[in-house]
Amino acid sequence: MELYKPKAGPTLEHIHTPDDLKKLKPEQLQDVCDELREFIIDLVSVYGGHFGASLGVIELTVALHYVYNTPHDEIIWDVGHQAYGHKILTGRREEFHTNRKYKGLSGFPKRTESEYDSFGVGHSSTSISAGLGMAIARDLNKSDKKIVSIIGDGAMTGGMAFEALNNAGALKSDMLVVLNDNNMSIDPNVGALKEYLAEITTSKTFNKMRDEIYDLLGHLKGAGDKMRKAASKLERAATAAITPGALFQALGFKYYGPVDGHNVDALRRHLEDLRTVSGPKLLHIVTVKGKGFAPAEREQTKWHAQSSPFDKITGKSLAKPGNGAKPAPKYQDVFGEALVELAAKNEDIVAITPAMPSGSSLWPMMHTFPDRAFDVGIAEQHAVTFAAGLATQGKKAFAALYSTFLQRAYDQVIHDVAIQKLPVVFCIDRAGLVGADGPTHHGLYDVSYLRAVPNMIVSSPMDEQELRDMMFTASEYNDASWAIRYPRGRSTGMQVREGFKATEIGKGRIIHEGEKAAVLSFGPIGNYVTEAREILSRDEVEIGHFDMRYAKPLDTEMIDYVMANYEHIITLEDGTKLGGFGSAVAEYVAAKGAGIPVTIMGVPDEIVEHGTQRQLHDEVGIGPDGIVNQVKRVLGVLV
Amino acid sequence: MELYKPKAGPTLEHIHTPDDLKKLKPEQLQDVCDELREFIIDLVSVYGGHFGASLGVIELTVALHYVYNTPHDEIIWDVGHQAYGHKILTGRREEFHTNRKYKGLSGFPKRTESEYDSFGVGHSSTSISAGLGMAIARDLNKSDKKIVSIIGDGAMTGGMAFEALNNAGALKSDMLVVLNDNNMSIDPNVGALKEYLAEITTSKTFNKMRDEIYDLLGHLKGAGDKMRKAASKLERAATAAITPGALFQALGFKYYGPVDGHNVDALRRHLEDLRTVSGPKLLHIVTVKGKGFAPAEREQTKWHAQSSPFDKITGKSLAKPGNGAKPAPKYQDVFGEALVELAAKNEDIVAITPAMPSGSSLWPMMHTFPDRAFDVGIAEQHAVTFAAGLATQGKKAFAALYSTFLQRAYDQVIHDVAIQKLPVVFCIDRAGLVGADGPTHHGLYDVSYLRAVPNMIVSSPMDEQELRDMMFTASEYNDASWAIRYPRGRSTGMQVREGFKATEIGKGRIIHEGEKAAVLSFGPIGNYVTEAREILSRDEVEIGHFDMRYAKPLDTEMIDYVMANYEHIITLEDGTKLGGFGSAVAEYVAAKGAGIPVTIMGVPDEIVEHGTQRQLHDEVGIGPDGIVNQVKRVLGVLV
Repeated sequence: MELYKPKAGPTLEHIHTPDDLKKLKPEQLQDVCDELREFIIDLVSVYGGHFGASLGVIELTVALHYVYNTPHDEIIWDVGHQAYGHKILTGRREEFHTNRKYKGLSGFPKRTESEYDSFGVGHSSTSISAGLGMAIARDLNKSDKKIVSIIGDGAMTGGMAFEALNNAGALKSDMLVVLNDNNMSIDPNVGALKEYLAEITTSKTFNKMRDEIYDLLGHLKGAGDKMRKAASKLERAATAAITPGALFQALGFKYYGPVDGHNVDALRRHLEDLRTVSGPKLLHIVTVKGKGFAPAEREQTKWHAQSSPFDKITGKSLAKPGNGAKPAPKYQDVFGEALVELAAKNEDIVAITPAMPSGSSLWPMMHTFPDRAFDVGIAEQHAVTFAAGLATQGKKAFAALYSTFLQRAYDQVIHDVAIQKLPVVFCIDRAGLVGADGPTHHGLYDVSYLRAVPNMIVSSPMDEQELRDMMFTASEYNDASWAIRYPRGRSTGMQVREGFKATEIGKGRIIHEGEKAAVLSFGPIGNYVTEAREILSRDEVEIGHFDMRYAKPLDTEMIDYVMANYEHIITLEDGTKLGGFGSAVAEYVAAKGAGIPVTIMGVPDEIVEHGTQRQLHDEVGIGPDGIVNQVKRVLGVLV
Repeated sequence: MELYKPKAGPTLEHIHTPDDLKKLKPEQLQDVCDELREFIIDLVSVYGGHFGASLGVIELTVALHYVYNTPHDEIIWDVGHQAYGHKILTGRREEFHTNRKYKGLSGFPKRTESEYDSFGVGHSSTSISAGLGMAIARDLNKSDKKIVSIIGDGAMTGGMAFEALNNAGALKSDMLVVLNDNNMSIDPNVGALKEYLAEITTSKTFNKMRDEIYDLLGHLKGAGDKMRKAASKLERAATAAITPGALFQALGFKYYGPVDGHNVDALRRHLEDLRTVSGPKLLHIVTVKGKGFAPAEREQTKWHAQSSPFDKITGKSLAKPGNGAKPAPKYQDVFGEALVELAAKNEDIVAITPAMPSGSSLWPMMHTFPDRAFDVGIAEQHAVTFAAGLATQGKKAFAALYSTFLQRAYDQVIHDVAIQKLPVVFCIDRAGLVGADGPTHHGLYDVSYLRAVPNMIVSSPMDEQELRDMMFTASEYNDASWAIRYPRGRSTGMQVREGFKATEIGKGRIIHEGEKAAVLSFGPIGNYVTEAREILSRDEVEIGHFDMRYAKPLDTEMIDYVMANYEHIITLEDGTKLGGFGSAVAEYVAAKGAGIPVTIMGVPDEIVEHGTQRQLHDEVGIGPDGIVNQVKRVLGVLV
C-alpha cells in the first residue's frame, strides 16, 4: 500500500537541500515558512507526531539554513521535538511520512540519519555543552565552521545548560546560542527563570528604565557641556547595566534580543549580523508553540504531540470511533489516581515531577492537593534531592520520573536518598521499550542501575491492581527507598478492587505451575507469558510462570522452589539483559552451582531503534513469539 | 594508647553545644573563632584531614550557631569539607580526634552522627535543593524553623544548584542561601560565574556606575523640580538594576552583600537582620580558604586537605623520612603521565576534568598542552556532553572523573556518548572503596551502571603497566566508548617498560594455574590474590588466578577454560556484588547450566563507612584474608 505523502507547496517542492533554499531571495522565505508549516500540519494530521514545537520554530529553521552553511556549520537542536522543519529542509521531505514509524525516520535529530543532524538528542539541555565541544574542536582544528546551539526556555532550566553557559562564557570560543522562548516545556514552563524572561519580553523594568533615561536626557538638552557629558556616560553605563540579558551577560555571553521569532526577515538579518560577532553570544527569540495552527496555539500542552488523525483546519479528532468499550487505563493514570487516593488518607504524602505533570499524570494530584504537588521544572537532579529534603522532615515523597530521565538524577538517588536511607518512593514511568520515541527514551537501564544501590527496593507490578497495592505498601514503608517501575501504555483492563492491600515485600506469586521450564517474569511484560502459554499448550508444552514482582529483594524461596521443581529457568524483563532482574536470578542460581540453566530474556546489549512497543518487543525477542521460541529452544522442542 | 587530643582554649572549652555559645556576649565571639581555628590547626597538624575549607568558614559557623536555633533550625552544608567547626561546636569536640578514622567521626556532615547534621553530604551543589525541600516541608508542617543552605562559589557552578535556585525563586518559601565565595573549588574555581562574582566583589562596574549617578545628581542639584524628580526616579531604578546580585535577583532571590566573611560581628548582625526577612534570599560572603594559617592561605589547593603531620606555625612537614625507597606512583599519576605521552603522539587527544585537575592528576596535561586540557568547573554533566561534542569533530576525548562523581553524568554517558557510539574514553579514578572519605565517595557502582550501557567497554587494569597499555589501546579505538577504572592510592611499584603496547580487547590473562578453585579478578584488587595464594600454599592449597581485565566484553573463552578445568569459580572485584563483574560471570555460567558454583566476592549491598582502604577491604571480606577464607569455605577446607 502506498502511504499518503503530503504535497509540498510550489516553493518548497524545489527545496531538496539547504543549497536550494539559499538560491531564493530573502523575500521568498516567508513562502517557504508558510508551505513548510502547511506540510507539517498536513502530515501530522494524518500520522501524528510531535507538533507544537516544530511549528514554533519554522521561521528560525528557515532563517538558520538560509544564513548558515550547513552541514559545514553545525546546528545543534535541544530536545529535538522541534526538528521536523529542519529534517524536511535537509533532504528528508520525500520520506518524512515514515517519521517515527518502525524502520522509518526518527522523530529526533540523529547523527546516523543525516550529516545535517550535528548531534543526536531526545533529552533536554544538552545543546550548549555539545556545541561548546564542537566550537573548541573547531578552534583546535583551525576550521572556520560556525556553531549554533538552539535551546528552549524550558530546557534552559536544566542545570547542565547552566554548567555549559558558565564554561562557554569563560572559554570565549565563538558560538551562538539561540534561546527559543515560548514559555513552555511540554507543560507550561515553571520557575524563576521563566518569570525573568517574561519580564524581559514584556519589558516592564527595561522599558520603564529606558523611558526614564530618555526623559532625563531630554531635560538635560539645554544644560552645559559637562552635564551633557556626564549624562551621556550615564546613558552608556546604564544601558549596559540594565540590558534585559543581565543574567546571560553575567555568564559571559553577549545578549541580543528579544526578537520576534515569527518574523523570518528579522531573524535572517539578526543571524547575518551575528555571524560576524565573535565569542559567545545569545540571541533571545520569542515564539509561540503551535504557531499557525489555531487549536495548537490555544492548547499548547495537548498539541505538543498528537497520536491520532485530526482535521487540518478545526483540529477535531478524526480517530475512528471504537467499539464502545472503554480502553484500559494507562499505567500512568492508574498511578496518578492511586496517588490522589493515598494522599487523601495520608497527609504526609507529597509528589514531585520534573516538568512532566501531563506525561506522569500528576495533574490530578496537583489539582486536588496543589500545596503538596511540585513541578520543579526540567531539573531531575534537583527533583530527587528536593524529595530527599522533604523526606528528612517526615514527608512521604513520591517522585515521578520517566526511567530514561531518572538516569539524570542517578547520583542524587545514591548520594542524597540511598546513603541516608530516606524513604523516597520513585515511581518510574516509561520503563522498558517506549515505542516511537526510540533510543533516547527507552527506559532499559533502571533495574540495573538501581539494583546496585543499597537501601533500595526495586519492584514492578504485573498489572494495575499490583501497582496500586505496591504504591500503598511503599507509602507505609520507611526503612529504605523504593522504586516501582511500570511501562508506557495501557494496563490490562482488569477489574480493580476498591481501596488498597498491603503486599509482602520481596515476595512473588505463582501464576501457573507447569513442567520442566519455568518463566520468572518481572513486571507487565509477564502478561506476554500468558499469551505464550496458550500457544505452547497447543503443542502440549505446559510451562510454569512466576510473577516475581521484586528484582530486589529477590524472592529466593520461590527460586529455590523453582530450582527444585523445574529443569530450566527463563527470566523475562523489559530492560537490558545485563545486570538487571535476570542477572539477579543468575547470581543466586550460579552461587548454588545447581546446574540448572538460566536463560535471561530481555533487551540485548545494543541500541534498539523506534517502532511500536510490540514491534520492538518482537524484534528483540521478548514478545509472546519470542518466549515461545525460547521455551522450545531450551526444551529441545523442534521449532 | 591514649590518642592525642588538642586542648580547647578558655572560651571554647566551655562550649559543648550551641546553647553554650548563645550564652556568650557578641564581643566574645571573636575569641571563640580564634580558639576554634587554633583547635582545628592543632588537630589537623597531627592527624591530617580537610583543612582550608573549615578555616575559611570559622566566623560563619560561629555566627550561624549564635544566631540560629539549631538543631530546630536547619543548617545545610554543601560538599561538607568545611564542617569541622560545626562539628566541634555541636557536641563532638571531645571525640573530634577520631575524625576520618575507622569507626570514628565522619569527615562530612552525617545525619546518623548528630541531630545538628541536617543533611549528609560529600558531593557538591546539593544544599539548596535539600534546603528547599526542608523549607516546603516546614511550610506544610506549619513549623517556624529557619532553613539556611551554605554553598561555595565552586559548588554554585554545579547545575543542580541552579536548578534549585530556579525552583526556590519561584516557590518563594522562606530560606537563606549563604554563598561562601572564596574563589576556589579544591583547585581554583573556573568559569564565567567566578568572573562575575569577582566583578561584584571588586565592584568595578557597580562602583563606577554608582559614582556616575552621584556625579550627575550633584550637577542636578541646582536644577528645577521636575528635573530633580526625574533624577531621583532614575537613581532608584538604576540602583535596583545595577545591584551586584542581578544574576540572583533574576532568579527570584533577594541579594545581600558582599560581606567580609571573616568579620564575625558583621556576619552576626547580617544574619540577625536576615532572620526577619521573608522569602528566598542570598547572602554573599567573601572568605579566604585556609584563613588564619599562612601557608594554607598562600597555597590553597595544597592545603585543601593534609594527610601527614606538619608544624603548626610553619606548615613544614613532620612526616618521618622513609627508608629512602621511592614509593610507587599513585594510579592517578600513572594516568596523568601516560596521557601526556599519548597526547604528544596523537594531537587529537584532549582531556576534560570537572574541577579536579589535582585529584585526577591532569595538571601535567594542562601544563604541557594547555589548549587541549579543560577544567570545566564542578559540572560533570556538562563535562561528558562537552566530551561528546569534541568527539563528533574527530577529537579523542579523555574524560577523567572519579567513579562517584561520574554517577552525576550517567544520563550523559548514555544519551550523548553511548547511543551515538562516540569514542570517548572515561578514565575512572577512585573506583572501589576509597578509604577515609567514606560512603559518599566510595566508587562502588560504576561497573554495574556502565556494564548495562551498550557501546561501552568496561575495563580495569591490574597494575600500572596494564593501565598504560589500556589507555593506549583505548586511544586508538573508535568503535565505542571505553571506561577504564582504577582505584585511589598507589600502584604496585613494578618496573614499567617504555612506550605502549596494544592489548587485545576483551581478553584476560592467566596469572597462575592451580587446582579446584579459580579466582577471576577484575582490577588491582587482583593483587590481593597473590598474597592470598601465598597464605593458602602454606596449607598446600594451590588456587588458579585469572586477571580478567574486562567486565565487558567478557573473556568467555577464558571462562570456558576455567569451567573445564576447575570446580569452583570465585570472582573478585572492588565494587558492589550486584550487577558488576561477578554478575557478568554469573550470567555467563548460569546460562550454561554447568553446575559449577560461582561465588561473587565484592562489596556487599550495604553502605560501607570510612576507614583506611585496607581496613574496609578486610571488613567487607575482600582483603587477602577474606579471599583465603572464601577459598577454604568453597573447598570445604577447615578454617
